[in-house]
Amino acid sequence: MQNKQWLLASRPVGEPTAQNWTLNETQVREPEAGEVLVKVLYLSLDPAMRGWMNDGKSYIEPVGIGEVMRAGAIGQVVESGDENFSVGDFVHGMLGVQQYATVAGQSLHKVDPALAPLPRYLGVLGMPGMTAYFGLLNTGQPQAGETVVVSGAAGAVGAVVGQIAKLKGCRVVGIAGGKDKCDYLTQELGFDAAIDYKEQDVLSGLKAACPEGIDVFFDNVGGEILDAVLALINFKARIVICGAISQYNNTTPVKGPSNYLSLLINRARMEGIIVFDNAEHYGEAAKEMAGWIAQGKLKAKEHVVEGIDTFPDTLMMLFRGENFGKLVIEVAKPA
Amino acid sequence: MQNKQWLLASRPVGEPTAQNWTLNETQVREPEAGEVLVKVLYLSLDPAMRGWMNDGKSYIEPVGIGEVMRAGAIGQVVESGDENFSVGDFVHGMLGVQQYATVAGQSLHKVDPALAPLPRYLGVLGMPGMTAYFGLLNTGQPQAGETVVVSGAAGAVGAVVGQIAKLKGCRVVGIAGGKDKCDYLTQELGFDAAIDYKEQDVLSGLKAACPEGIDVFFDNVGGEILDAVLALINFKARIVICGAISQYNNTTPVKGPSNYLSLLINRARMEGIIVFDNAEHYGEAAKEMAGWIAQGKLKAKEHVVEGIDTFPDTLMMLFRGENFGKLVIEVAKPA
Repeated sequence: MQNKQWLLASRPVGEPTAQNWTLNETQVREPEAGEVLVKVLYLSLDPAMRGWMNDGKSYIEPVGIGEVMRAGAIGQVVESGDENFSVGDFVHGMLGVQQYATVAGQSLHKVDPALAPLPRYLGVLGMPGMTAYFGLLNTGQPQAGETVVVSGAAGAVGAVVGQIAKLKGCRVVGIAGGKDKCDYLTQELGFDAAIDYKEQDVLSGLKAACPEGIDVFFDNVGGEILDAVLALINFKARIVICGAISQYNNTTPVKGPSNYLSLLINRARMEGIIVFDNAEHYGEAAKEMAGWIAQGKLKAKEHVVEGIDTFPDTLMMLFRGENFGKLVIEVAKPA
Repeated sequence: MQNKQWLLASRPVGEPTAQNWTLNETQVREPEAGEVLVKVLYLSLDPAMRGWMNDGKSYIEPVGIGEVMRAGAIGQVVESGDENFSVGDFVHGMLGVQQYATVAGQSLHKVDPALAPLPRYLGVLGMPGMTAYFGLLNTGQPQAGETVVVSGAAGAVGAVVGQIAKLKGCRVVGIAGGKDKCDYLTQELGFDAAIDYKEQDVLSGLKAACPEGIDVFFDNVGGEILDAVLALINFKARIVICGAISQYNNTTPVKGPSNYLSLLINRARMEGIIVFDNAEHYGEAAKEMAGWIAQGKLKAKEHVVEGIDTFPDTLMMLFRGENFGKLVIEVAKPA
């Protein structure tokens, strides 16, 4: 059986280009004992992928040159050498940007297509949802009545952060690009205000939207937006550093936050998070989030693009702010 | 009685110059009921003074144009309208850069010249000591066996931070300017290593001195030093932002830490501190520190310059790294 896969051909300098990728065709490898052959259905596209393309020490090994690009995905079991999985089962795992993956059964977990559309297991019910849940609640520690600001607010993580903050009784302000996204935040997700960074000055927008200052900031973007928020934080504010998508394709050094001394003036805290650290508590979080979804209190949107061939271009949608909701590639439809 | 005082004449752009100050001569104001007239003996010179000269929101009101420059000081009571103070008492308070201060008795507290030389109440037994104690222990949370790095390590705060970290069983590395200061840190204060930022590349120096990475960083300096440390922090590291003396006289924006995403990779935390927040616990801290001093485990050095007339020049010693120990002006000798 043929397997089409995207390999990392070279490390990008700045924006990834066609030169950084090779589309490879190979034969599917048969599963050995304990392994499972999975047909990939939905690929998760995430800003973190840009970091995995770089060399150097990080929270996870870089993808090697010539290796299949790392990606979380939902797939369906085609052949199983692991008694815990049967042909036809739907699973989540790090399957990579390819049509078929032969992986250890232990690295997979089952998902139920009857409970939610499959792409949702890559969004609100997957890593982005867990990132939002633990990053906001454990590190941001929002209290009822406080003002919570989130950047990348219409993205897979940001939209969940804002909705959970509303559930906790906070005033919630989102920063996103474009009128459609801003309208979605305020009209469909219940945000108190949204700032369109493409049309408005973010600092002025935040001043107007946060008359009592900012207590919690959940940052997916970095750059100028982080500096604008720092100028408006309150005493003992918490800034959760989840990402900095505005800086990932820089060819110059990352823009450090000039206003970081606002942390001193306000005795505030800036702290980084990685979702994997909470792995042992995913179950509890998923249960609580599923409850909110069932009650209509937590909504989700996926942006599905068809075809594995589109991968290099589709990935760039993230950095151009062109996705609206969790970005997913449909590699194949479920059987 | 004549009172010589330094007034803030204008707000500096970049380094304070002679134009920013007026030397004023006025008459001492007699104390009313509840007030005390204090003769100023020792003035505390602190990096934070540069911030008080700026306009704009901060953790404390700026000094107004035409007002006496704010300064902590040790003085001696000359006349008292407060039954809690008698003529001859030695006191600490925010007396300002002047020869005499007429202030509310409630704003003063007594110090005992029999227990320590008076300038020491402006250093290890004063705000710098408290800053080091609470900033390191409450916010840095050093654990035995961890590596603690401190910048401005030969300064009033830094030297105390390093010694307390040693008392807590940590490996301690100081960053300071010049061989004399570095020798002092390692030979007299017991630091494990010292890096001379004037002679060495700080990043290479830190790599060599911190083979197991950095768990706690207590930063008084900011700029390139903060970035070098961020490149070497460990999982769950704590960065205490106490100051950024390298940036206070900037005419360009503050250099934000380019490497701040190391907080994300390492799930680390950066947090600002202001000593005043711990005011209700100063007593306990002073008691513990006095014990360490008595046991010879906590040493202190003051750098005393004579004469209030030198104030504008003496202040600049801080920003040029020319002081060696807590910088104090002797305005008058005790009676």
